[in-house]
Amino acid sequence: MEIVGAGLLGTSVGLACRRSGVEVLLTDISSEHVRTASGLGAGRPRRADDRPALVVVAVPPDHLGTAIREALDRTAGTGAVITDVGSVKSGPLAAVADHPDVARYVGSHPMAGSERSGPLAGSASLFDGRPWAITPHLDSDVEAVELVEEMVRLCGATPVWLTPEEHDRAVARTSHVPHLVAATVASRLATAPENHLALSGQGVRDVTRVAGGDPALYGQIVTGNAEAVLALLGEVREQLDRVIAAVGAGDRDALESLLAEGVAGTRAIPGKHGGPPRPMGSVWVSVPDVAGELARLLADAVASEVNIEDIRIDHDPARPVGLVELLVEESRVEHLLGSLESRGWVTHR
Amino acid sequence: MEIVGAGLLGTSVGLACRRSGVEVLLTDISSEHVRTASGLGAGRPRRADDRPALVVVAVPPDHLGTAIREALDRTAGTGAVITDVGSVKSGPLAAVADHPDVARYVGSHPMAGSERSGPLAGSASLFDGRPWAITPHLDSDVEAVELVEEMVRLCGATPVWLTPEEHDRAVARTSHVPHLVAATVASRLATAPENHLALSGQGVRDVTRVAGGDPALYGQIVTGNAEAVLALLGEVREQLDRVIAAVGAGDRDALESLLAEGVAGTRAIPGKHGGPPRPMGSVWVSVPDVAGELARLLADAVASEVNIEDIRIDHDPARPVGLVELLVEESRVEHLLGSLESRGWVTHR
Repeated sequence: MEIVGAGLLGTSVGLACRRSGVEVLLTDISSEHVRTASGLGAGRPRRADDRPALVVVAVPPDHLGTAIREALDRTAGTGAVITDVGSVKSGPLAAVADHPDVARYVGSHPMAGSERSGPLAGSASLFDGRPWAITPHLDSDVEAVELVEEMVRLCGATPVWLTPEEHDRAVARTSHVPHLVAATVASRLATAPENHLALSGQGVRDVTRVAGGDPALYGQIVTGNAEAVLALLGEVREQLDRVIAAVGAGDRDALESLLAEGVAGTRAIPGKHGGPPRPMGSVWVSVPDVAGELARLLADAVASEVNIEDIRIDHDPARPVGLVELLVEESRVEHLLGSLESRGWVTHR
Repeated sequence: MEIVGAGLLGTSVGLACRRSGVEVLLTDISSEHVRTASGLGAGRPRRADDRPALVVVAVPPDHLGTAIREALDRTAGTGAVITDVGSVKSGPLAAVADHPDVARYVGSHPMAGSERSGPLAGSASLFDGRPWAITPHLDSDVEAVELVEEMVRLCGATPVWLTPEEHDRAVARTSHVPHLVAATVASRLATAPENHLALSGQGVRDVTRVAGGDPALYGQIVTGNAEAVLALLGEVREQLDRVIAAVGAGDRDALESLLAEGVAGTRAIPGKHGGPPRPMGSVWVSVPDVAGELARLLADAVASEVNIEDIRIDHDPARPVGLVELLVEESRVEHLLGSLESRGWVTHR
């Protein structure tokens, strides 16, 4: 595999895959980054005659579309799969949607990072147990999706299956908006008297930690997902107005009920991996033409708002009809079956 | 010493002070709490004939004024010092300001807690290395202030000296507003699809963690500090509006500059204790009548917005004029000297 962009994420992917002995090739516009990442053991510099089966694009958000297109171009005819690890998925896809080889591209996004950047901040364990979104589009090759999944698992991460559009709405909520709001709280500390700041406890450190991230990087990420971010920021402002009204009126009941909504939100965040395992169940779906239909099945499964924990594809070429197994929490099996059936899929109960 | 209220904080104070062999007496309206805390080693139930030298009131915010007054009443004539560990300091003081023995009361507030509550959540190390505000009022006895400081140090915490009013403005910024804003972000998760929440990483967990706290408790805390909280919430909303405008207009420069204000804020939070020690300096001030003037000196020092790391009082009764040493960061010595001199204090350079 090749990694384009030997920064924090690219170097970490290289280090993680090298643990399993995978050959990793490194490219970066900065030869120093390549030297540093190689020195850390993340791979070796790519040579002109290398033919990687997978290219992982790990460049800053503004350059994703260009870099993915460039990777598709120069791997023409090799069958190489291209993925990226960018924080927003609709924009890069739109940038290459008209490419004749777009079937070889499958976007992805690891939910891991650091306030630090560059290859020296990389770590082989950065992705251990973290969610990693895989976002096939309707034209993605099944084999491409499976190769990306294999890389995600090699990195120790847990695949989360989403369409590019659903992904962007999801990260607005779980990442971009929390980041922006943390930054507004943190901004109120910048001008505070030092004897007030001496009272800072763990709470304010936690609330504001992510706001320490690079403004240029997060500026790119947020403006690349402006629509979903704006919709949610509007909701946050409305909720903040309700809090201000409750405190201003001394309305203890209203305030407690707003705080209780916050408690419910913290409980909605799924437990970290390593918690007690929840019972899982399988949903089997017939897919007449696996190559063309898997992405459409996934889009329909995603629309049912169930978290797909795993997808297993039956590749037996002797069967006229393919079979796909979707693994979900047992309590959600019935809901997913009904939802898929109502969308015309043939399921096996 | 006696602890009134054997919940999370009261039990933790008891456990911390017992480490040094201090005798700790426990009182609570719930005899089960007293039994549990005693069983954990936080002290023993108070008997009618006990005469504690220090009473630590650790009851919920709504009951602080009443409980402090009750403690002052029943220790009349014993010279006992009363403190409390409540999250807001002006309100409880106002509730007992007319008490003839108010000189024996000195408020305090440890910057430590947990999303859990009750004696079983208590820990002897809860306060280790944490800031603990001590908030003398203008009538506080010097000896009372010193006894409270001694308890704070026994608990392993670092005293932070503030007036009650400054304290409340400070915690609005470093605790109450971050909590409320975290709750608004968390509330947006409560109704999110489960496959969106599957992308939750460490960032959103950190931003929303404090929002898991008891709504009834935080409702009491916030409404008890409504004025300072509202002023800051207004600032946060204005900043949020600027963020919304920048994202809406796709104004990358404006967004980056708002994010940079957030970065500056995270850097303004002082390093945790255990970081590299900063060079300290002393400011010596003559205090004609130590008993009456210390609180006024402290209020003036606090108004200069320098963080007072320690206060040492020269008690030599043979001196006609007392001497107080204020320990501050070396780079702030000149500023504090000038500020105190401009307020009429005699300093020693």
